[in-house]
Amino acid sequence: MPRVSTGESVIARSIRVVEAFGVDDKELTVGEIARRSGLHVATASRLIEELVRAHWLERTDHGVRIGVRLWEVASRASPAVGLRAAAMPFMQDLHHVIGNDVQLAVREGTEVLFLERLTSPSPVVNYSRIAGRLPLHASSSGLVLLAHADPSVTDEVTSQPMKAYTDKTITTGPQLRTALAHIRREGYALCAGHIFPTTTGISVPIRGRGDQVVAALGLIVPNDDAAFGRIPALKAAARGIGRVMSTPQPSSR
Amino acid sequence: MPRVSTGESVIARSIRVVEAFGVDDKELTVGEIARRSGLHVATASRLIEELVRAHWLERTDHGVRIGVRLWEVASRASPAVGLRAAAMPFMQDLHHVIGNDVQLAVREGTEVLFLERLTSPSPVVNYSRIAGRLPLHASSSGLVLLAHADPSVTDEVTSQPMKAYTDKTITTGPQLRTALAHIRREGYALCAGHIFPTTTGISVPIRGRGDQVVAALGLIVPNDDAAFGRIPALKAAARGIGRVMSTPQPSSR
Repeated sequence: MPRVSTGESVIARSIRVVEAFGVDDKELTVGEIARRSGLHVATASRLIEELVRAHWLERTDHGVRIGVRLWEVASRASPAVGLRAAAMPFMQDLHHVIGNDVQLAVREGTEVLFLERLTSPSPVVNYSRIAGRLPLHASSSGLVLLAHADPSVTDEVTSQPMKAYTDKTITTGPQLRTALAHIRREGYALCAGHIFPTTTGISVPIRGRGDQVVAALGLIVPNDDAAFGRIPALKAAARGIGRVMSTPQPSSR
Repeated sequence: MPRVSTGESVIARSIRVVEAFGVDDKELTVGEIARRSGLHVATASRLIEELVRAHWLERTDHGVRIGVRLWEVASRASPAVGLRAAAMPFMQDLHHVIGNDVQLAVREGTEVLFLERLTSPSPVVNYSRIAGRLPLHASSSGLVLLAHADPSVTDEVTSQPMKAYTDKTITTGPQLRTALAHIRREGYALCAGHIFPTTTGISVPIRGRGDQVVAALGLIVPNDDAAFGRIPALKAAARGIGRVMSTPQPSSR
């Protein structure tokens, strides 16, 4: 282990401990955390003990889990939370009117990160999860965010293999650049069967201050002729969210 | 600065840096973080740099803010997120039917921590916030959680001054114990004007596996005669949430 005695390394290793948790990991044993984070069991064990003391991790019967305190701290003042607060009323309205999954996403590097998802009891399959990620090229939200990102991000995406989820998934640079130009021109991305054959993802940009695209608002609907008709409601909701975000909010609430 | 060279101290100080952020702090300067965390500016600055490198904090024009990455990690597999996922559909239904603020809370020590809040455009005043806290004795959610906590928690609450928000707030031990007995007997807390004269908080327990009270579901409604009539809908929603939490969920979604 290099840099054992410096503060930097301790922080980096603590972060590796916390980041060992995946979206589905309700709890992990010390051994699993050590293996995933590439730390010696003794080192992991000592870091875990300290994080438990701070309530950032909590002990369970067989190991540890993410602490409510960590969630609380991370949720305070996070830009994700401000965006979500502005978006939620509009997302609830859409969810009520349209009845399918509504989701809110931001770009993190070459992936789309889902901040919020309102699910429906319908049988439509949806691979996104709150705090889950998908590659930018695959999902309609990812394409919207890529279409409004610096062109260097597109270069980065096309420089790597693009995973095919179905035979409709965009997997080549020319396909991707054509799709992005279309999205910029029309103001939406409609991906019929790109991730799962029976579902369509539709997304539009949310613009914050200075008209910058800060997030994508999306719907997951059945892959049928009705999907296209959802776009106006989605665009209207995204404009509403952008308006709320650009308006100073009373601090009393 | 004691314990400068040990890992424990570095972790503890990093946590103090992150915990310097309050609910309303969109960004903080390095100086503000140093002051709030009780660290030398140079120390705070070095820890901040490391946290920025891990994307747990992000640089802004004038300082730093909580990073989206920290939110993502904390949201993964957190019990708060599982509870929220089970509760959200029922909260949305309640919000739609009743039209007032609906909130979800857990106990953290002698405070109630709000995990989720669906707001309404109505003029009802509500002091709770997502990832915000209130003392247990003041809010209906806090009273419900206290009523089902170990009696030692009640002793702890009564051993300290109980802040009066209005002249209806519970501020003495005997008042508190009478209220808790009533809540256990009737299955709900109704606090008319306890925090703000014109509003009423109503909360009921959510029971998880083994019938343990794991959270409180609450409504903030106008302080009028109609408040009492909301209780059956609230109780029914809390039962639904408890049922979902006690049922193994398909892992494919």
